[in-house]
Amino acid sequence: MLIVMKQGASASEIDAVTNHLRDLGLTAQEIPGQNCTLLGVSGGDVDSVDLNTFRTYSGVQQVLNVTSPFKLSGREYKRDDTIVSLPGRPAVKFGGRKVVVIAGPCSVEGRGQALALARELKAAGVNVMRGGLFKPRTSPFSFQGLEDEGFRILEEIRALGMKFVTEAVDEHSLEMVEAHADMIQIGARNMQNFSLLKRVGKSRLPVMLKRGMSATLEDLLMAADYILSGGNANVVLCERGIRTFARHTRNTLDLSLIPAIKELSHLPIIVDPSHATGDRRYVPPMALAAIAAGADGVMVEVHSDPNCALSDGAQSLYPAQFRELLPQMRAVAQAVGREI
Amino acid sequence: MLIVMKQGASASEIDAVTNHLRDLGLTAQEIPGQNCTLLGVSGGDVDSVDLNTFRTYSGVQQVLNVTSPFKLSGREYKRDDTIVSLPGRPAVKFGGRKVVVIAGPCSVEGRGQALALARELKAAGVNVMRGGLFKPRTSPFSFQGLEDEGFRILEEIRALGMKFVTEAVDEHSLEMVEAHADMIQIGARNMQNFSLLKRVGKSRLPVMLKRGMSATLEDLLMAADYILSGGNANVVLCERGIRTFARHTRNTLDLSLIPAIKELSHLPIIVDPSHATGDRRYVPPMALAAIAAGADGVMVEVHSDPNCALSDGAQSLYPAQFRELLPQMRAVAQAVGREI
Amino acid sequence: MLIVMKQGASASEIDAVTNHLRDLGLTAQEIPGQNCTLLGVSGGDVDSVDLNTFRTYSGVQQVLNVTSPFKLSGREYKRDDTIVSLPGRPAVKFGGRKVVVIAGPCSVEGRGQALALARELKAAGVNVMRGGLFKPRTSPFSFQGLEDEGFRILEEIRALGMKFVTEAVDEHSLEMVEAHADMIQIGARNMQNFSLLKRVGKSRLPVMLKRGMSATLEDLLMAADYILSGGNANVVLCERGIRTFARHTRNTLDLSLIPAIKELSHLPIIVDPSHATGDRRYVPPMALAAIAAGADGVMVEVHSDPNCALSDGAQSLYPAQFRELLPQMRAVAQAVGREI
Amino acid sequence: MLIVMKQGASASEIDAVTNHLRDLGLTAQEIPGQNCTLLGVSGGDVDSVDLNTFRTYSGVQQVLNVTSPFKLSGREYKRDDTIVSLPGRPAVKFGGRKVVVIAGPCSVEGRGQALALARELKAAGVNVMRGGLFKPRTSPFSFQGLEDEGFRILEEIRALGMKFVTEAVDEHSLEMVEAHADMIQIGARNMQNFSLLKRVGKSRLPVMLKRGMSATLEDLLMAADYILSGGNANVVLCERGIRTFARHTRNTLDLSLIPAIKELSHLPIIVDPSHATGDRRYVPPMALAAIAAGADGVMVEVHSDPNCALSDGAQSLYPAQFRELLPQMRAVAQAVGREI
Repeated sequence: MLIVMKQGASASEIDAVTNHLRDLGLTAQEIPGQNCTLLGVSGGDVDSVDLNTFRTYSGVQQVLNVTSPFKLSGREYKRDDTIVSLPGRPAVKFGGRKVVVIAGPCSVEGRGQALALARELKAAGVNVMRGGLFKPRTSPFSFQGLEDEGFRILEEIRALGMKFVTEAVDEHSLEMVEAHADMIQIGARNMQNFSLLKRVGKSRLPVMLKRGMSATLEDLLMAADYILSGGNANVVLCERGIRTFARHTRNTLDLSLIPAIKELSHLPIIVDPSHATGDRRYVPPMALAAIAAGADGVMVEVHSDPNCALSDGAQSLYPAQFRELLPQMRAVAQAVGREI
Repeated sequence: MLIVMKQGASASEIDAVTNHLRDLGLTAQEIPGQNCTLLGVSGGDVDSVDLNTFRTYSGVQQVLNVTSPFKLSGREYKRDDTIVSLPGRPAVKFGGRKVVVIAGPCSVEGRGQALALARELKAAGVNVMRGGLFKPRTSPFSFQGLEDEGFRILEEIRALGMKFVTEAVDEHSLEMVEAHADMIQIGARNMQNFSLLKRVGKSRLPVMLKRGMSATLEDLLMAADYILSGGNANVVLCERGIRTFARHTRNTLDLSLIPAIKELSHLPIIVDPSHATGDRRYVPPMALAAIAAGADGVMVEVHSDPNCALSDGAQSLYPAQFRELLPQMRAVAQAVGREI
Repeated sequence: MLIVMKQGASASEIDAVTNHLRDLGLTAQEIPGQNCTLLGVSGGDVDSVDLNTFRTYSGVQQVLNVTSPFKLSGREYKRDDTIVSLPGRPAVKFGGRKVVVIAGPCSVEGRGQALALARELKAAGVNVMRGGLFKPRTSPFSFQGLEDEGFRILEEIRALGMKFVTEAVDEHSLEMVEAHADMIQIGARNMQNFSLLKRVGKSRLPVMLKRGMSATLEDLLMAADYILSGGNANVVLCERGIRTFARHTRNTLDLSLIPAIKELSHLPIIVDPSHATGDRRYVPPMALAAIAAGADGVMVEVHSDPNCALSDGAQSLYPAQFRELLPQMRAVAQAVGREI
Repeated sequence: MLIVMKQGASASEIDAVTNHLRDLGLTAQEIPGQNCTLLGVSGGDVDSVDLNTFRTYSGVQQVLNVTSPFKLSGREYKRDDTIVSLPGRPAVKFGGRKVVVIAGPCSVEGRGQALALARELKAAGVNVMRGGLFKPRTSPFSFQGLEDEGFRILEEIRALGMKFVTEAVDEHSLEMVEAHADMIQIGARNMQNFSLLKRVGKSRLPVMLKRGMSATLEDLLMAADYILSGGNANVVLCERGIRTFARHTRNTLDLSLIPAIKELSHLPIIVDPSHATGDRRYVPPMALAAIAAGADGVMVEVHSDPNCALSDGAQSLYPAQFRELLPQMRAVAQAVGREI
């Protein structure tokens, strides 16, 4: 921590700050400068001190953090890329040379439909399927998901050799996901549900953590820290669009998060272009862009009959569209030295 | 729901849409216009249909919702203002002529300090105190609150004739809050934790629902709908700043939400200028502005020793500052026909 | 400027940075710390160096600016509040104890209407009128203003003892405003039209500089610096709403800018609640809130027949509404120790 | 235009609206619905009526626009893609199969440096160079560009068979650009400088119009309408990042604008990843992503000695980095059926 004192700060103003620091068990090194005096703070548990405490002291101009607010998810803590593997066969690894493709409906709506789609995706070479059973819907009057009864369908899908990732929203749904799926999804609206994150940190399953709609890179990595600090090292981040003033898409897909995460964190990161755009016409170009930007995976909504989907139909690809997109994704992956 | 067909949409394009509507049990009335053809949709459960389903149909220009996405919290459902009363004496009512002042520390940090502050606030005429026991902190390495052991302190404070509002973050903390406090706070980060909202909808205690950092007015009222639809009619909304590009305050306080909520909803709304600004120098002017804008209450952080606060010290008022602010708030309240 | 080297940065990495600094005529003082090494940079023209140049050097963790990016508009340059007076009688001063009320239509649309409204406002005690002649409209197919022919109307209005503020958008319109009005308005869309700002810096008339829709506090003060550095010291800032994700108002009025500007700058600041909200129902509460928050003035749109206004009718108050608002603004001003 | 009357709106409320419409020369067709009454408005110059005028009428729930706010830049006005060619040889076309690569420094800083870089870029196969002479800098104390004296350098660069695009900020600089360059750049800060847009609409040179930092897709296309309506049909749009709360990049690059523009407009669109990210480490992945998303061109900052650049050095690629990026861009272009 660095405290910058205003030009002309008095000795007593500086003393007030250094005394307070001493009370907190910290050491302040005074560094006189041309335009201001700096106090370099160290010693003790400097990271746990609230920086802002000092901002309103008389004579203080700025308080600056010189260390990252995130810890376990940062490259300073672990230099090498983390590879997150889903348990069992076929091998699915996030963070290696291969770009993982996840596809499936927004919600699992019924047995027949889900199984047919699973077979179709499997035939196309997809090994991980998505589909919500507990849906965090903005309105209580919207379809809330099949909930418990849908988990039997998952087991049938997994019997086809397909991995399944689905969202947990609380203790109960998390137990169901742990019992019947391969990967726990934490949705954007729960990215700062710290109680849930702590619980997920105790799980044996890998976690896909979606970025909150107004989360900064730091917020996202600190949310990952909640999971990592619980002992679960298998976290895959997911960019799915942020809230901005723009209205041509539902959210604004922030693909520049990918190289920034690659720079600052060792965790893999994938992209969900379906929730980001909310419009199937924009999903294929954004899926290709995500791969070109270095994403470790892409999660795309596909529905056998999007116009009848109970949620998010407008952003779901038709199966034929998805079959057309797959070779394009392969070509772009190859162009950037990856493969699908 | 209104579907606007593009100028020059063909009969078969229109038929595709109307057939789909018929399959969903809805009726489409065709309204030929100068520049486009409109389809007015009604019948069946039109509200539960996903509008966007039709947006990507060939020939469709726009799909427009002509009804509010929120229901129970809207003035169309209930015309008269809702007054939310805290149980017991002294009477505290949100939504009437009186502007409610809530004060207290960010977190309850210890017995002696909390009780001393409670007495001081009570003497100043404050009847509702705030203070967190379960803190949803962005980093897992920050102070997480006293948790269970703090609730005994709450009982002592309430014995002084002070009401207490504190945050619940999950099932366990909610049970503690229900047992030992007067009002449940749902924090901004949990505004779309729908599992928690459903549970709170079953509670007998009034709820203060804070606006999420990226929540629109509609999102906030739909979150309130989750609570109202569970049977708990006592919801007080709270504006606490939204995420924008601006950096001179921690969040951007959106006071125009107040008249908009008054226009569209029957629920009371209060303002938290402390979390919004993150800077105690800006709290008093924003508290006064909130009252001038028509807020039904103001929640202000006060700490007996802000520089030693374990969280959010920089935004906490000194007790002396708060004592100075109170008569100013009274004067502004009077100027706009309210009282404190 | 401070350069924070990563923990473990090598001596050669540090040398690369210090050598580059030396080439730029700057001095680097090395400050070894617990977790990192700091380089305090001074000497030469440190302010003109692009901070980011050093950010991508190997071994650099952060580059921090410890001085304000704005200069002439800052309190460090001039400690005392600037009072901006309009020329002539009656005295109108921005920045003193009095809160200035400016009222008038979005656009001047015709002689009769404008004069009638001017007389009505004058009778109500208003001394400054607004009204656009050159309108920066988003679409080229919208009404663009009366332009040159409207300036004769201005002279008639000013003959009533009313001051007039109107917008300049380029060299030509600026010459017209200088010849026929009392104050130059620079609109939000031109806040970073630096060519126009430089020209306005040479003007003898006071300037009202509106905050751009995505301008930070720093951007706004640097825009003011363009005018001040040209020699024109009479700048009044104006908050008029920023672009955010929120949709219940046209823009989000950021009233917390007021205390932040008061803290960091000596310039007066007023508020335009009409363009901020875009809805006349929300204008009165936001005008009152602006005064409570410490604004030095309020600019409100009033139209004798808002429903027939050629621009922004929905946000214009009816004259009767405005007459009702005035005593409320007086009461709030008094409550916060000001007067109207 | 559609006006939605509230459920239970009275006949006299409806009459008030229809009478007003009639006064404006418009026709209202009443369409009774299940939950509300619709008024379909047509006739006269309905597009020039301010929609919002009716929003505050008693009994009105919503006012909806059913036509696009942009006209000449929309696909409804011109169905086929516009191809914008730079004058002369070699052929440079925006909007066809070829993806145009533009490279060069942020500012032209000196003759020797600029010419050396031009030769290097030309050798690498680049046919269009960028470089600012008039720089719209946020602070008046930053380097403002070489201005007039730099144009001689441009002529020397163009003599090498290199096209040049550079920014105009006012009438004078525009005349210089028209005399000495191949394409006029309108910067983000001037996207709504309508006076300048009108003047550019009279120019014989093609225009690159950069999206404003807070411009919606509609704002951008309406700004293009200003140029198109002046008679200049050669407009290339440019996405360069928008202002959001995110801080890991200078602005947030909104690549989803590309497919949305392709859907709604006939104009070509390119991407500037350098200004968007502000960080050279993130420029290559974002350049590749832009091409994968369907951009018609990419504009990248390259500087022979970025660490000594007078502006934006941190986001400028080293020449060697650029040489490495070019074949990657070619590979991605090929993967999506384009070429460089």
